[in-house]
Amino acid sequence: MSIEPRLLLGSGPSPVPQRVLDALAQPTIGHLDPQFGAIMDEVAELLRATFRTENRVALPLSATGSGGMQAMVDTLIAPGDRVVCGVHGAFGARMADALGRAGADVVTVEAEWGRAIETERLVDAWTAGSRAMFVVHGETSTGVCQPLDGLRDAIGDDGLLLVDCVTSLGGHPIELDAAGVDAAFSGSQKCLNVPPGLAPFTANERATAKLQRRSWYFDLEAILGYWKPDGGGRAYHHTAPINMIYALREGLRIVQEEGLEARWERHAEAHESLRAALAELGFARLAPDGEQLHPLLCVRVPDGIDEAAVRSRLLQRHGIEVSGGLGPLAGKAWRIGVMGEGARPEARDRLVEAVQAELRA
Amino acid sequence: MSIEPRLLLGSGPSPVPQRVLDALAQPTIGHLDPQFGAIMDEVAELLRATFRTENRVALPLSATGSGGMQAMVDTLIAPGDRVVCGVHGAFGARMADALGRAGADVVTVEAEWGRAIETERLVDAWTAGSRAMFVVHGETSTGVCQPLDGLRDAIGDDGLLLVDCVTSLGGHPIELDAAGVDAAFSGSQKCLNVPPGLAPFTANERATAKLQRRSWYFDLEAILGYWKPDGGGRAYHHTAPINMIYALREGLRIVQEEGLEARWERHAEAHESLRAALAELGFARLAPDGEQLHPLLCVRVPDGIDEAAVRSRLLQRHGIEVSGGLGPLAGKAWRIGVMGEGARPEARDRLVEAVQAELRA
Repeated sequence: MSIEPRLLLGSGPSPVPQRVLDALAQPTIGHLDPQFGAIMDEVAELLRATFRTENRVALPLSATGSGGMQAMVDTLIAPGDRVVCGVHGAFGARMADALGRAGADVVTVEAEWGRAIETERLVDAWTAGSRAMFVVHGETSTGVCQPLDGLRDAIGDDGLLLVDCVTSLGGHPIELDAAGVDAAFSGSQKCLNVPPGLAPFTANERATAKLQRRSWYFDLEAILGYWKPDGGGRAYHHTAPINMIYALREGLRIVQEEGLEARWERHAEAHESLRAALAELGFARLAPDGEQLHPLLCVRVPDGIDEAAVRSRLLQRHGIEVSGGLGPLAGKAWRIGVMGEGARPEARDRLVEAVQAELRA
Repeated sequence: MSIEPRLLLGSGPSPVPQRVLDALAQPTIGHLDPQFGAIMDEVAELLRATFRTENRVALPLSATGSGGMQAMVDTLIAPGDRVVCGVHGAFGARMADALGRAGADVVTVEAEWGRAIETERLVDAWTAGSRAMFVVHGETSTGVCQPLDGLRDAIGDDGLLLVDCVTSLGGHPIELDAAGVDAAFSGSQKCLNVPPGLAPFTANERATAKLQRRSWYFDLEAILGYWKPDGGGRAYHHTAPINMIYALREGLRIVQEEGLEARWERHAEAHESLRAALAELGFARLAPDGEQLHPLLCVRVPDGIDEAAVRSRLLQRHGIEVSGGLGPLAGKAWRIGVMGEGARPEARDRLVEAVQAELRA
């Protein structure tokens, strides 16, 4: 088995440190082994610290980040619920789709791809009978960060504020409790630098007070019987993905060793430095100043460049992955990950030199 | 990070060979990298060989085996569908539960825990308007194998024959096409000796002709747009669990290197040899002769033995995991995995010696 390594500067997965790969390959043990119980407790505590929450419920769901989205829908939304759903890119559109399939009354509030949604438009869409408001904090399709300020107050005590922080967690400032977020999901493979396959998830008491149980697999109440945030014996629900959870623990430990604020600052600096370097080559950032998502730099590819051909050469000749655009940005933009170990001057230099070489070619 | 290794002889996870752990820790690459596309094609081909099917659709879902069950429900069953569901243990009961949550009209056909269901009782429950029949081929809660013979003919061309082969795949004879199975799911962590986290899944044309799309995450039609069994460009749906798929490939390669028939035979021999050794210590198999599931030996613990205490000492003093009973067998039975690398004379000897030592203690 020989995999040619890549420098992963696309939309995710991101560069996985050897420490995390080593953790991943530790001996598999049982999901009810006391050794594993201690690991679960540590992962829950590390997730709370990373989400900046005191929530009792903080655990990795046994699915990718998109599975975290599905679990949010299956467990917190009932058919007929009115849900205000912000859509300013592919991942907001995906949530609107998932909500619609679940029978929710979905009210989308849209913004142009590449811009944040004005808070007052989200607030205006809220009505007294609404169940939840959902926004994508870090839009991976456009590199835009959606501010959460002002949403909690607008939706009152009965509404749920639901957030996708797949690409922001561990890389862009977000503090769930301070923002009044009721439930959020993320993914292992972005700023946590863990392979894809787990969805960090958290929910507060307002969210868990009325759990839906349509799905057997994503039944949060049953999953909590295994994760046991309140202590007590763990009851088997499904077999946990043991080795992936080892890797997540290691990734979260690295985040805490660096310190969340220091890590946020490093991502901001790495983003700005890469943005400036690529701007000199004619690649302008899609997001306006102040709306950028540090871990994901989305740039317009200059006219006259066959973006897919250059991207393919970056991969084949230089071993560097960057991602193409989605939806209306397909063929027009690149999405460059600035995530964890990818948010380093060495990564920037390798990418910029490779792009320069290929533009000359 | 130091994990004390265990000899995993419980209900799963099973012993993971170093080759598989090494594959797991290979460098993470992107889910749209051509290198990964080649791996996906190989995994699909290896799954077809292991399932004994010519099905176009054969892929690992990004969830544990239980997620495979959920995907089967979400994608093949519509609300109101009449489904005949065999229940002779915890995993049949789980499926009946999941079907009920999805709004199916569930007709259960039950048998005592520890016995197979008589085929004619399943057949008698079938009516012309039924949509599907579901059975658990390898009941992990009881160590019983449910025969599939006679089911396909009974349900006609319009019905779907759906099978859970989580614990049998790669360890107990099952040939999906020969048995006329329309869709089946398995898990990575039983006889394939891969860490938990993936659900091998297959479906034939009869099953995929009318896919339900209630779930976004388990939308098989969208997932097929990424796995592309018919060739063509892969469209992103969700980020695949890259490293787990490396590990699954390695586990499936090991199965094919040994040869499926040889592997089935080895499991049968290892089962019988362990059964005989434990019978001498007073642990009698639950399943009668001819109904046993080779990869999972469920035995009654003799009266007067505190099974939980002995099981705990096996783990703490000998590093050996066996599993306790579920449901009506809790406190009364052990479930002993005879799965892949666990189906070896060395594993049997270590377990038998440890049990002898603890019974003397």
